[in-house]
Amino acid sequence: MTEDTQEARAVPLSGLFEAERSAEIVAASLAGTTDERLKEILSSLVRHTHAFVKEVGLSAEEWAAGIRFLTETGQKCDDTRQEFILLSDVLGVSMLVDAVNQPADGRLTESTVEGPFHMVDSPARSLGDSTDEAGRGGEPCLVTGRVVDTDGRPVAGAGIDVWQADADGFYDVQRPGEVPERNLRGLFTADADGRFWFRTIVPRYYPVPTDGPVGTLLKATGRHSYRAAHIHLEVSAPGIRTLTTHLFVDGSPYLDSDAVFGVKESLIRTFAQVDDPARAAGHGLPNPFRHADFPVTVRREARP
Amino acid sequence: MTEDTQEARAVPLSGLFEAERSAEIVAASLAGTTDERLKEILSSLVRHTHAFVKEVGLSAEEWAAGIRFLTETGQKCDDTRQEFILLSDVLGVSMLVDAVNQPADGRLTESTVEGPFHMVDSPARSLGDSTDEAGRGGEPCLVTGRVVDTDGRPVAGAGIDVWQADADGFYDVQRPGEVPERNLRGLFTADADGRFWFRTIVPRYYPVPTDGPVGTLLKATGRHSYRAAHIHLEVSAPGIRTLTTHLFVDGSPYLDSDAVFGVKESLIRTFAQVDDPARAAGHGLPNPFRHADFPVTVRREARP
Repeated sequence: MTEDTQEARAVPLSGLFEAERSAEIVAASLAGTTDERLKEILSSLVRHTHAFVKEVGLSAEEWAAGIRFLTETGQKCDDTRQEFILLSDVLGVSMLVDAVNQPADGRLTESTVEGPFHMVDSPARSLGDSTDEAGRGGEPCLVTGRVVDTDGRPVAGAGIDVWQADADGFYDVQRPGEVPERNLRGLFTADADGRFWFRTIVPRYYPVPTDGPVGTLLKATGRHSYRAAHIHLEVSAPGIRTLTTHLFVDGSPYLDSDAVFGVKESLIRTFAQVDDPARAAGHGLPNPFRHADFPVTVRREARP
Repeated sequence: MTEDTQEARAVPLSGLFEAERSAEIVAASLAGTTDERLKEILSSLVRHTHAFVKEVGLSAEEWAAGIRFLTETGQKCDDTRQEFILLSDVLGVSMLVDAVNQPADGRLTESTVEGPFHMVDSPARSLGDSTDEAGRGGEPCLVTGRVVDTDGRPVAGAGIDVWQADADGFYDVQRPGEVPERNLRGLFTADADGRFWFRTIVPRYYPVPTDGPVGTLLKATGRHSYRAAHIHLEVSAPGIRTLTTHLFVDGSPYLDSDAVFGVKESLIRTFAQVDDPARAAGHGLPNPFRHADFPVTVRREARP
C-alpha cells in the first residue's frame, strides 16, 4: 500500500479551464445546443462577457457587487415593476435593440422603446373618447392622427393603443387606489380613412422609478432620472408591422437628455394652444385646449 | 392661431440616440460618475453589451426572453440559493474572475471557485474531529495537509474552512431537517507547524441545482449539470492572501467536464485506501479508510 499521493497524473486531463482561452472553452461546451440561433447568441454573449472581465480586470469584490446588483434587480420585479427592462432602458440597450430591428426607411414613422409601463391591457375606447377617467387636473388636449402605409394608403381599422403619465408624472399603476385602473390608457380603432382622435391631458415629464437598484446606479453615475414628456403609441393592424413609438411634447424638459435615450427628433410635436369655442364644444373639450397631430406611416409586411 | 404642427424644429437637438454611436452616447452619459473605477467598469460593460446586441442582431423577442431569464434568475435567489452565482459559474465567469485576480506564481496552490454553498458559517472544530455529524453512510476518510508560504515556512494557526457534499451529493442546506445543520462543514486551526487533519467522508460528485433558469439553460445547451467530487477549502491567516480552492477526488466522473469549469489538474488528489488498524484506531476511524493529503502553499502579503 502506498500513500504517496503527491505523484503526477499519468494522463493529463484535456479540456480544463485556462484563462487565456476561457471564452473558447466555455463556447465549446455549448456545442450540443440544438437551437443554432441560441448557440450563436450564447457564444457571442460568453465572448463579450469574458472580454469585459479581462478588460477591466474585475476583482472578486467587484464581481460580488455585480452579483448583488443583478439579484436585487430581479427581486425588485413584480406584476407592476420590471427593473431589468428599466436597467436595459437606462443603459441604452432597449433603444439599440429597437434600432437593430427597424428597417432603414425614411418614409416610416420612427419607433422608440416600449418602456416598462405597458403591463396592463388598455381598455377599448371609441374615437373621440377621453382616456382621462380620473379628472384630477391637467391641460385638456386633443390628439389626432392618420395611419397610412408607405404608399400613402390609409390603414383602415388600425389599432392605436395609447398609454401615458398624468399631469403629475405618474402612470395609473403607480397610484393604485388613487386613480381608476387603466386611467390614461386606451385602445382606439382608426376609421375607414385610417384617422384616429381622442381626448386626454398633456402628460408631464417624470422620473423613472428610483427606489430600486437602477435608481442607485443612476445616482452613482450622476445621471438624472427624468424622461421627457410623451404619450406612448402602439399601432397595429393585420398585414402591417407593429409600430411602438412615442409622441413627445415639444418644449418639455429633458428632450435632450432623456434617461432612457428614447427621444427622436421626428417624434416631437407641438401641442398647440387652440382657441376655438365651436371646435372645443364639438369635441367636448373646454376652450381653449391643446392639440397635437401625429401622422403615422407604417410598413406593410411582405406577403408570404 | 396656427395649427400647423408639422413644421420642423428650428434648432435640432443634440445628444440624441444614434444606433451607430450608441455605446459612445451611453458612455458619455456616465461622465458624472465620481468613482473613476465604477466609470471604467460601466463604460466597458456598456461597450461590450452594445457590441453583443449588434453582433447577433438581437430581436425584440430574444431581448424579451433575456429579460425574462434574468428576472427569473433573480427571483430564484433566497437565503440558501444564489442562482446568479450559479449562472456566473456555468458560464465560466467565476473561474475567469478568479484567474484574473491570481498572481501567476507556480509555487502557490491554485485557487478555484467558491461556489454557491458557502452561505453559512462553518462550526469551529478541533484538529482530528469529524465534520460528519449525520453518520448516514459514506466512506470514512482522513484529510491531512500543511500550510506553508512560498519560502516553505509553516503558517502556524492558519484557518482551514472546509465544506462539502455528502455521499449522496447533497450539501446540508439542501437537506434541511434531514441532516444536522452545518453537517460536513468545519473551521479548523492549523497547529504550530502549519499542519491540519480532520475526518470526513469521501464526497460524491453532484449536479448543480437544475430546477431554476440555469438548469433550463444547461438543458437547452445539451450540457450535463455535474460537478466532479470535491471538498472546498478556504485557507486564511493574518498576513497571507486568502486561498479559496477545492481538493478534487481522483477518479471521480466529470473531472474533465465539470459544469462550472472548476477543475485544475494540480488540485486532484488520490484518496488512497489505507489498511492500517493501529493508525485507523489512532484517528478514531474504521479500518480500512481513505486518505488524501493536500499540502497548501499560500502567499504572504507584502507589508504596507
